[in-house]
Amino acid sequence: MSIRIGVYGASGYTGQELIALLDAHQEFALTFAVSDQFAGQKVPQSDLTYRPSDAVDIVAVDMVFLCTPHGASAPLAAQALDAGAKVVDLSADLRFQSATEYQQWYQQPHPAPALLPTPYGIPELNRYNLININAIANPGCYPTAALLAVAPLAKVGALESFAPVIVDAKSGVSGAGRAPSETTHFVEVYGDTRPYKIGRQHRHTGEIDQELRIMFPDAGPVIFSPHLLPIDRGLICTAYIPLKENWTQSQIREVYEAQYYAEPFIRLLPYGETARVKDAVRTNGAVISLHHPVPEMVLVVCAIDNLRKGAASQAIQNANLMFNLPETAGLITST
Amino acid sequence: MSIRIGVYGASGYTGQELIALLDAHQEFALTFAVSDQFAGQKVPQSDLTYRPSDAVDIVAVDMVFLCTPHGASAPLAAQALDAGAKVVDLSADLRFQSATEYQQWYQQPHPAPALLPTPYGIPELNRYNLININAIANPGCYPTAALLAVAPLAKVGALESFAPVIVDAKSGVSGAGRAPSETTHFVEVYGDTRPYKIGRQHRHTGEIDQELRIMFPDAGPVIFSPHLLPIDRGLICTAYIPLKENWTQSQIREVYEAQYYAEPFIRLLPYGETARVKDAVRTNGAVISLHHPVPEMVLVVCAIDNLRKGAASQAIQNANLMFNLPETAGLITST
Amino acid sequence: MSIRIGVYGASGYTGQELIALLDAHQEFALTFAVSDQFAGQKVPQSDLTYRPSDAVDIVAVDMVFLCTPHGASAPLAAQALDAGAKVVDLSADLRFQSATEYQQWYQQPHPAPALLPTPYGIPELNRYNLININAIANPGCYPTAALLAVAPLAKVGALESFAPVIVDAKSGVSGAGRAPSETTHFVEVYGDTRPYKIGRQHRHTGEIDQELRIMFPDAGPVIFSPHLLPIDRGLICTAYIPLKENWTQSQIREVYEAQYYAEPFIRLLPYGETARVKDAVRTNGAVISLHHPVPEMVLVVCAIDNLRKGAASQAIQNANLMFNLPETAGLITST
Amino acid sequence: MSIRIGVYGASGYTGQELIALLDAHQEFALTFAVSDQFAGQKVPQSDLTYRPSDAVDIVAVDMVFLCTPHGASAPLAAQALDAGAKVVDLSADLRFQSATEYQQWYQQPHPAPALLPTPYGIPELNRYNLININAIANPGCYPTAALLAVAPLAKVGALESFAPVIVDAKSGVSGAGRAPSETTHFVEVYGDTRPYKIGRQHRHTGEIDQELRIMFPDAGPVIFSPHLLPIDRGLICTAYIPLKENWTQSQIREVYEAQYYAEPFIRLLPYGETARVKDAVRTNGAVISLHHPVPEMVLVVCAIDNLRKGAASQAIQNANLMFNLPETAGLITST
Repeated sequence: MSIRIGVYGASGYTGQELIALLDAHQEFALTFAVSDQFAGQKVPQSDLTYRPSDAVDIVAVDMVFLCTPHGASAPLAAQALDAGAKVVDLSADLRFQSATEYQQWYQQPHPAPALLPTPYGIPELNRYNLININAIANPGCYPTAALLAVAPLAKVGALESFAPVIVDAKSGVSGAGRAPSETTHFVEVYGDTRPYKIGRQHRHTGEIDQELRIMFPDAGPVIFSPHLLPIDRGLICTAYIPLKENWTQSQIREVYEAQYYAEPFIRLLPYGETARVKDAVRTNGAVISLHHPVPEMVLVVCAIDNLRKGAASQAIQNANLMFNLPETAGLITST
Repeated sequence: MSIRIGVYGASGYTGQELIALLDAHQEFALTFAVSDQFAGQKVPQSDLTYRPSDAVDIVAVDMVFLCTPHGASAPLAAQALDAGAKVVDLSADLRFQSATEYQQWYQQPHPAPALLPTPYGIPELNRYNLININAIANPGCYPTAALLAVAPLAKVGALESFAPVIVDAKSGVSGAGRAPSETTHFVEVYGDTRPYKIGRQHRHTGEIDQELRIMFPDAGPVIFSPHLLPIDRGLICTAYIPLKENWTQSQIREVYEAQYYAEPFIRLLPYGETARVKDAVRTNGAVISLHHPVPEMVLVVCAIDNLRKGAASQAIQNANLMFNLPETAGLITST
Repeated sequence: MSIRIGVYGASGYTGQELIALLDAHQEFALTFAVSDQFAGQKVPQSDLTYRPSDAVDIVAVDMVFLCTPHGASAPLAAQALDAGAKVVDLSADLRFQSATEYQQWYQQPHPAPALLPTPYGIPELNRYNLININAIANPGCYPTAALLAVAPLAKVGALESFAPVIVDAKSGVSGAGRAPSETTHFVEVYGDTRPYKIGRQHRHTGEIDQELRIMFPDAGPVIFSPHLLPIDRGLICTAYIPLKENWTQSQIREVYEAQYYAEPFIRLLPYGETARVKDAVRTNGAVISLHHPVPEMVLVVCAIDNLRKGAASQAIQNANLMFNLPETAGLITST
Repeated sequence: MSIRIGVYGASGYTGQELIALLDAHQEFALTFAVSDQFAGQKVPQSDLTYRPSDAVDIVAVDMVFLCTPHGASAPLAAQALDAGAKVVDLSADLRFQSATEYQQWYQQPHPAPALLPTPYGIPELNRYNLININAIANPGCYPTAALLAVAPLAKVGALESFAPVIVDAKSGVSGAGRAPSETTHFVEVYGDTRPYKIGRQHRHTGEIDQELRIMFPDAGPVIFSPHLLPIDRGLICTAYIPLKENWTQSQIREVYEAQYYAEPFIRLLPYGETARVKDAVRTNGAVISLHHPVPEMVLVVCAIDNLRKGAASQAIQNANLMFNLPETAGLITST
């Protein structure tokens, strides 16, 4: 018996990645893949063809993955839930606790405020909220890496209250999506590296702020500096975390080990090693290293694949929890 | 006294490259740079702003460079010539001897057949046709490399009559232009190398055919295989040239030395070395190496910069000839 | 019951790739991984540590993969066969029919001539020679692509007798191995593309020649032009194949379809599509497209992953045949 | 009349870059280029051949550029100064005020402590120390970018006393030098981005600390995180600078404008724009942008070319000052 899956927004980079992962998943069976732009064309990694959104019946599936843009996702989520299907929304629509916050960062009214709040799905940080539920907001790629880096300290209250938490992050170009633009033109990206929307301009800032403050209400503002790297995929961030005085370095290490020691997708590197993009690419893993240059500040490096743990494979991981399947199903090859 | 220059199509990669080169040229002074798309914005490497085409007066300049698309260039060329300005057309409009050939390769009627034939401007191959004249067809990037590789043998009649001449060519992405598209999206190009329009489909095939047959009427068909390389600029081709039986290897070497020994922009490598893209990038040079694996076939490798010798700097070189300036003016730094 | 596997030369790029593939193979169990240079270090994708060659017992395994350099492989192969273990040799040592040919291309006496000839393992071309045997010479990366491109025509005798067959090939840098050198320095490769050892200088030329002449004794000399691409992995070649006059285009297409229609790892593209590197990367597949620009010549493009179908995964495919396992075992994910 | 120049360590990436720049400099004439490794080979961009160090006579030149490793440079500097030649040392040997500091960061005794202190040469920050003098310590690539970003605020005392100053920096691979290693192997770098020696481990940390404290004695420790980017050249850093409370945003902007408004090589971007690597590559320029996400912290992005402003062209700029030449000589093309 398979769980029947529908994917909306299936032709973008995240959608394609998701479909390739679904193809290797024993319990999930792709029933339809929606793309208005590529309707009628073959779906890579599948025997299906893309179908226009008005030609699929949401009742035919047990769950949907929404890789649609923000604004378009929430109405589809509402429709799916009404029809009895579970939802993992990979857009930003369900990530904020309140419609007010959403409007502040996305400059538009929330399209389905009744759906808020929806659990925010990083299983390593809040797994107990995600099991057997019907809807999950799949986090942004940058927030996934940033929160995996900072959360253990936030949860135990080791952050210096109200002090800025700096996240200097770097991502491959697939994070910018499949639509051609000057920003993603090969000649523009090649040989370059550029920060963009740095400080508190990027929309992911709000997501990181919100989640940190849930864990530690006195968390200071996130200073978030995304950079565009001349690679296709992969994401790495260094978080500069100001510490409360009474936390020692060995306590810090223990905090991360306690949080992550049993996590199949987290690799906490030993001292002396530093996480790098390549460690994480094409996996659902997050690779984390800790560095203590001065007593008052910890540096945490976290590398993920922006299309996997930052999007599609984390969505699968969340879906596994929703159906009470083994969390690693379809994500780790067993022999 | 400066020669006043107008550039049409000034915002594309070739136009930008040309303007940077004009900035370093002692005799040419940029008077206007036309771009309808970027009208009003600052021209990089210049104090000017882009102007729309209907806001410039062709009478104000002594010559124009046309970096406009095929179809749009020829009418501008006619207008400039009527106004007494010289023309270097970097599009394909003036490259064919006849409107019939043009229509065959570009699937549209020639927009100004009275301008044909116009001299085809590769100074190292036909300099005597280019001095003091009023209009030059600037060759395509691929034909420049291919013809510099094959022409010396064609001119002396060493090609096996009617046998296919194979040109396997590889170019950086700037050759595809500045307009964003799926083909030029960073994620599509990164990690890939792809042949496209191979055989006799690419429009540059006709140009190479035409010029080879002018040099050697019995030249066989060109088999032309362009590839898109994951680099921003640079172009390299390997030509596989079938030889007439009565030509020996030492004669072949002499042919290339005789053709190119005095050329400031051609570097004929000694035996044992092989041309590479990096040798030519950011220069007006062509780097050529000869290889004789079997008696009946010579391999000639030729590397150029597609935006320089393949477009903008060759246009300057041609313009220098048109005004009887030193051919290297603005192209080689003198100390 | 698992088949016990030893890997020699396990720390190079091919060895690492092989170990990752073995990890996903249900029937093969890695028993030891030999690397003198990295002895004592952890083997990536495995729970083992690298062991020095003198600390492993070849009797403990059922087969060995030799990723050792030419010259070093053949003695190990002899030793393994004596001990009753099967052998897939990924070096050049067992590829030639005779020690004379080997010496001609490798400038050294063959280290174990009694092992020659050993079957040359491209299953799509000579599967019947490979089943249940004890030793296979795993082909070079370039010859794999070149032969998959040319072999169907050679086998049916459609090649123009004695006419040169041109193979213009391009490979990612991992093909040059893991040892650091000027040639593989990032700064040297970045932004460049370079032909090397072109004509008939590269050692793989001999391998391609030999195999083509087995299929078609009148095959002309291979003109082989390898290029170094600025990518990490992937290989593509375009073969320019002169045809006998009495072969029509539709016959040519039929020849390829007849050869490959049932092959799980070959994708013959429909007319109008062209193979590209990305089609094949990280798979055991070969993607092939056919092009007929002129009656007397066919162009065949073939893309593979140099580390997979060009080395490690083809080695697994060969090993599957040797043990009479399904040929796709460990190479295609089944759901 | 030309100033006669000798270059030691002339075959590395910095040495090659320097020689190309000297070739375009009207006042400097390259007399010899020393490389023991490449002795006898042709010097690119020059008519000379590399000479071994024991075959050149330091008396024959008016100044030397030392691109030699730390430890080897200082003795050459002493020798040159004794012979009456001026010195720009591109190694770390002359960068520290005291031999103690040097030993702390380089784990070896200083080879010529009598030469300390030598002026540290970033003309935009301390030009008055550099004119007409005999020896200059050319700064490291990372410190050049970091100090240009932070110095204006340090000089006016706007830094929060004793608070860490974070510099998250990213550099192309040429910064790692020309010697092949696993770290610089194309396959290792491609598709990756990796932090290394982050916190306070990298030797450039000491240089930045020292110079900041000269400007502002209460400067906190620098937290310095270098990253290796998959590009050949270019360097960008984002500095996160904690502010004293009494400094407003408009005052901050004025500080940078006051420091840099007349500098020919500094481009201070208007608000809303962000510096990127490409802005600076192949120039002696530094491109700087300012960002104020929260009142208590300023972000300053600075992009340079690690081989130019970070090494060779800044060395020329310093040499111009030493000989009282126009500071831009040989560095900006005039028409």
